[in-house]
Amino acid sequence: MSKLLEGTDRTEALEELSEAGWTVEESGNAMTRQFKFKTFPEALGWMVHMGVIAEKMNHHPEWSNVYNRVDVRLTTHDAGGLTSLDLELARKMSQ
Amino acid sequence: MSKLLEGTDRTEALEELSEAGWTVEESGNAMTRQFKFKTFPEALGWMVHMGVIAEKMNHHPEWSNVYNRVDVRLTTHDAGGLTSLDLELARKMSQ
Repeated sequence: MSKLLEGTDRTEALEELSEAGWTVEESGNAMTRQFKFKTFPEALGWMVHMGVIAEKMNHHPEWSNVYNRVDVRLTTHDAGGLTSLDLELARKMSQ
Repeated sequence: MSKLLEGTDRTEALEELSEAGWTVEESGNAMTRQFKFKTFPEALGWMVHMGVIAEKMNHHPEWSNVYNRVDVRLTTHDAGGLTSLDLELARKMSQ
């Protein structure tokens, strides 16, 4: 099982992801970001691409889509907060 | 532009969709339903299938996905409520 991020590792990772547009929720246990695309098919295509990656990781996002926007929320339920799995998926989504 | 559903047409359509698991929001202007699948890939695959149909109709759902569940909300923004486009998409989703 993935361990909760702590200390400097957590601080540094979240700084990096903050620059990439991610926001940590007030609880500290999840992070969110909105992704915007030109069209609905582009948004859906990106969800498929990221969905395949998420399935391979066996770590899935909570996400919603309205037309060309996708709102993503990442957390690790088993661990009750942010773990390296969330970082990894956030980095892949940000690329 | 699609017109708002009214009168008997609306009543009958919503009765049919209620039997298919759709709920009309309190405002009367949107309807929602949760779809549940066995796995995340099945949920994502269904979103792709329905997304292509939605794109062809140029009428898009608001939807969110968490693992094997997809929550759908249908409304016609231009018309400010439920129209035949929402019925059509709801019927296709319910099949």
